[in-house]
Amino acid sequence: MLGKVTATTVATQTIEGANGVCYAYRRFGNASDVPLVLFQHFTGTLDFWDPALLDALAAEREIIIFNNTGVASTSGTTPSTVQQMARDALTFIDALTLNKIDVLGFSLGGFIAQDIALLRPHLVRRLILAGTAPQGGPGLHGWRQDIYDATHADNPGAGTLLYIMFKQTPTSQAKGNEYLGRFMERKDRDAPGTLATRDAQYDAVVEWGIPDHNKLARLAAITQPTFVANGDADYMCPTRLTHLMGGLIPNAQVKIYPDAGHGFLWQHHGEFAADVNAFLAS
Amino acid sequence: MLGKVTATTVATQTIEGANGVCYAYRRFGNASDVPLVLFQHFTGTLDFWDPALLDALAAEREIIIFNNTGVASTSGTTPSTVQQMARDALTFIDALTLNKIDVLGFSLGGFIAQDIALLRPHLVRRLILAGTAPQGGPGLHGWRQDIYDATHADNPGAGTLLYIMFKQTPTSQAKGNEYLGRFMERKDRDAPGTLATRDAQYDAVVEWGIPDHNKLARLAAITQPTFVANGDADYMCPTRLTHLMGGLIPNAQVKIYPDAGHGFLWQHHGEFAADVNAFLAS
Repeated sequence: MLGKVTATTVATQTIEGANGVCYAYRRFGNASDVPLVLFQHFTGTLDFWDPALLDALAAEREIIIFNNTGVASTSGTTPSTVQQMARDALTFIDALTLNKIDVLGFSLGGFIAQDIALLRPHLVRRLILAGTAPQGGPGLHGWRQDIYDATHADNPGAGTLLYIMFKQTPTSQAKGNEYLGRFMERKDRDAPGTLATRDAQYDAVVEWGIPDHNKLARLAAITQPTFVANGDADYMCPTRLTHLMGGLIPNAQVKIYPDAGHGFLWQHHGEFAADVNAFLAS
Repeated sequence: MLGKVTATTVATQTIEGANGVCYAYRRFGNASDVPLVLFQHFTGTLDFWDPALLDALAAEREIIIFNNTGVASTSGTTPSTVQQMARDALTFIDALTLNKIDVLGFSLGGFIAQDIALLRPHLVRRLILAGTAPQGGPGLHGWRQDIYDATHADNPGAGTLLYIMFKQTPTSQAKGNEYLGRFMERKDRDAPGTLATRDAQYDAVVEWGIPDHNKLARLAAITQPTFVANGDADYMCPTRLTHLMGGLIPNAQVKIYPDAGHGFLWQHHGEFAADVNAFLAS
């Protein structure tokens, strides 16, 4: 449709939070009572969200993507704990004067989303946890060596994204290349993330993964209807931890997408968007 | 094949354990290095195993079904704790002088199977946990009222099995009726279970379900390759607890069968047997 705002064309806006941070965000889609706020993965910026996924979600609701404190075009210094990232995200949400939201958290964004749901349960109507893991979950204490090496190359390229986000099968890698094409469509690009952001975020990831069986009991307090989803071969947040969240969150539904890794939601963008839209409408 | 021993024709044998209990069992199938021992559900007897499932498993390995202490044609008094049931099952296994087995535990039999794997890890090569739940799991403390009422009718009939084992959909109920037909094929029937067995087993089920987050950490010590499976609508051992086991058992694979309840393994007997055979052969 001529003139329709899409993920590729929507303008980037900024808003200052009570903490003095100037948050960069994009907001578009069809008006809905409750907007969907999306929380981005480790080292991701506004541009890393798959435009095809965003457009399919925005067809049925208003969506908001943002850079948290210190990330890319948002000012400030990236904190090194998930807890502070959650408080910073709440400052952004407060600046927008939102009092009821749906939340989609992907990977590190899913860690933050869990803390948001626990810190301010009355804010969150429904929750989607994609390719993520609970605090203290087994097998999460830092990434396996090849993923660590790939994510900590100082000049990561497209090959890095393909390696860490997609399964090591020809079909998944081909879907990854399609994602990269969509990823590059936007002209008005976000600022790149910095190595300081990467390192602070990885500190947060590792702390979150310190094994702690008792902390798993936190999930019992996430009482919102929750959709937990992942690929069948997530190398970053192991797929078993998606099952674990589905088992401990009282009102969760679980879906595992075939032939897919951490970036299952890019690979299966159409099916995942339809599942999310159905879940949020149910 | 003329004369071939099947689940419907295999003779019932007995063996006396070191505890003086005379265990009834059936053993048949193609010779294999490691036999598969199956642990039966609440109030089930030798006859309750679906012959179609058993025959498909027996085509690739030797299988053993048995009545635990006090159940149906096995002598003794049914204990009221899972722990004692596990020790009684080990006495039976010792009487057969088995030192390496694969285990398939269904429902209450899956509770016992977990304890066997924890009490004697060197005995168990691979583990299948079907329609079951971990000790202390959330939402397991006794069954919901309609299931309790159905299972505690003093004269349960075929309708009871259909209600508690199959999903409340026409397709699942039709599959339930097919199971009932196979269930009735055998002429040389086991003795019926008693109300005393039912009540002792339910005491064990309820104790197992007392919520205890710390007890969930026991699953980390089940290090065998494990296949956890269930229907998508288990009313007795809620499906979420299958996901939970898949999340906490270190080397588990999870499969949820569609349009099925607790008795998914009767309903999807062909697919489940193929999955189990592939898992045990992998």
